Amino acid sequence: MAGEFALLAALRDLLDGDGPGLPRGVDDDAAVIDHTGPVVAAVDTLVEGVHFDRRLSSLEDVGFKALAVNVSDLAAMGALPDVALISLQRPSDLTVDQARELYTGMRSAADRWGCRLVGGDTVTSPVLAVSVTVLGRLVDERVVLRRDGAAPGDLVVVVGSLGAAAAGLEALRHDEHRILADHPELATAHRRPEALTEAVPPMVVAGVSSAIDVSDGLGRDLGHLARLSGVGIRLDADRLPRSEGVLALAHRLDLDPLDLIVGGGEDQALAMTVPPGRLGRLDAGLDGVGLRARVVGEVVVGAGVDLDGREVGALGWEHH
Amino acid sequence: MAGEFALLAALRDLLDGDGPGLPRGVDDDAAVIDHTGPVVAAVDTLVEGVHFDRRLSSLEDVGFKALAVNVSDLAAMGALPDVALISLQRPSDLTVDQARELYTGMRSAADRWGCRLVGGDTVTSPVLAVSVTVLGRLVDERVVLRRDGAAPGDLVVVVGSLGAAAAGLEALRHDEHRILADHPELATAHRRPEALTEAVPPMVVAGVSSAIDVSDGLGRDLGHLARLSGVGIRLDADRLPRSEGVLALAHRLDLDPLDLIVGGGEDQALAMTVPPGRLGRLDAGLDGVGLRARVVGEVVVGAGVDLDGREVGALGWEHH
Repeated sequence: MAGEFALLAALRDLLDGDGPGLPRGVDDDAAVIDHTGPVVAAVDTLVEGVHFDRRLSSLEDVGFKALAVNVSDLAAMGALPDVALISLQRPSDLTVDQARELYTGMRSAADRWGCRLVGGDTVTSPVLAVSVTVLGRLVDERVVLRRDGAAPGDLVVVVGSLGAAAAGLEALRHDEHRILADHPELATAHRRPEALTEAVPPMVVAGVSSAIDVSDGLGRDLGHLARLSGVGIRLDADRLPRSEGVLALAHRLDLDPLDLIVGGGEDQALAMTVPPGRLGRLDAGLDGVGLRARVVGEVVVGAGVDLDGREVGALGWEHH
Repeated sequence: MAGEFALLAALRDLLDGDGPGLPRGVDDDAAVIDHTGPVVAAVDTLVEGVHFDRRLSSLEDVGFKALAVNVSDLAAMGALPDVALISLQRPSDLTVDQARELYTGMRSAADRWGCRLVGGDTVTSPVLAVSVTVLGRLVDERVVLRRDGAAPGDLVVVVGSLGAAAAGLEALRHDEHRILADHPELATAHRRPEALTEAVPPMVVAGVSSAIDVSDGLGRDLGHLARLSGVGIRLDADRLPRSEGVLALAHRLDLDPLDLIVGGGEDQALAMTVPPGRLGRLDAGLDGVGLRARVVGEVVVGAGVDLDGREVGALGWEHH
């Protein structure tokens, strides 16, 4: 493949360059970003064979997802994205067209969330990987949504779908044509996860007490939140969202749907805790942007996460 | 190896946590960084087998270098580092002790340059790699050092050593005990490059017209600077720094020292252009921090970089 500079030249039209208020950096050692207030930064890396499989996702999907997972991390902090920096690790057989496909996906995600894209660097590597750093700003400079603010009596609320990304991955792996055709949202949830930035202003305005993005599975992520907050969490199985697609896939592969819903990762849903008196405002705010606040449990004195009395620590999978 | 959260727990004492003016992020989805003025950001990734060889460098060296190369990128823009975010890609056989060694090196570099260290994320990968994003601030908010500001008549100045990192790598590869013992600075230049942050305030105050850090080799990096500025650069071979260690290694391996000095990468020296009338101030400023401004050539009307009339485009190596 082309050298680094030839490659950056071929990718140039997909990146943001100089201009008023724009980052500088395509041709420089670093990017300069006009910014006011605290900077919120997240970094995440997708590695081929670990986080994606080119037989199941296009490189454009991979690029989109590499940005989306970081935007979701920012959302869980109460922040919106401004700029993404990319570090591409490319094997020698990656073509310029393939690199463009990857960057086209990142460009789509950047446009989707109003984020600028800076080249960063590209290095050769035996393994294709893309590391994205997203810098953003707090919706309200005084409010950082943390993982350690849950208090007994708070309600546990989920925004977004649960289990669809895991079901989509399983459906793609098992080549379940029928289910993929009947429920196209499953493959999309795996390939092109949404980051629910629209939820952020309502969450901040309502005053949620803690938040986390559901990337490792609801059970595991709420486990972090419970541990850091020094509380327990009780989930009510009947209140968890069960989408038709997830149920259909679970039935087809003889899986417990709850394993997908509570244990499946990569959903990029947002989980949060909210004092009961603030639920109405959260509900109204989310409704105003077309999202639904789903109460799935409560915060209690204690430790760990349980589902109808069953410990869910064993459910969920750890990010690779 | 341990899972991500167990690993982060084991690395916790090497990272910066919460506190007044400190980034938050060890336990959160993203880091929040108190910051005023424009943010300058650089990202760079070191991949095992491409950028480092564990037989020649310790993991502590690798961690140190992963930060240093980014700090050097910031220096070339006129910026100093504030915060580093780390994305670790770890093979399954990497032990917690080895991860700690890597992070200890990053901690040393962070302490060396007064930079805070945030965990970022860790993912599994078939190949060990570390991707570091450094965020910093401009020394003078009004001044960004660019690559496109060189003008005919400017002098070309180098700060720092040239060829030592390449000579060190060759000496280590060929197991040249005698040369490594007589010139320990060679191995250090390869393993633990310095980022010349002390040079930045004098460069900004003096008003250099362009700057770049010498990571791909002086010839190649000045080639970028010449191309982006629309000028030519003439280097004077007699004025290039020739250290005893570089000369000794070149002699021993029957290499042309200029191939190392003009073509060798990873020096993390700073190259810049300066109008002749400002050289005195640059010289005095650098002298005040114990550094030397070495005039090695001049900017001319034209294109490309030549060395005593010889085109140096072919020299230098491209970053992998």
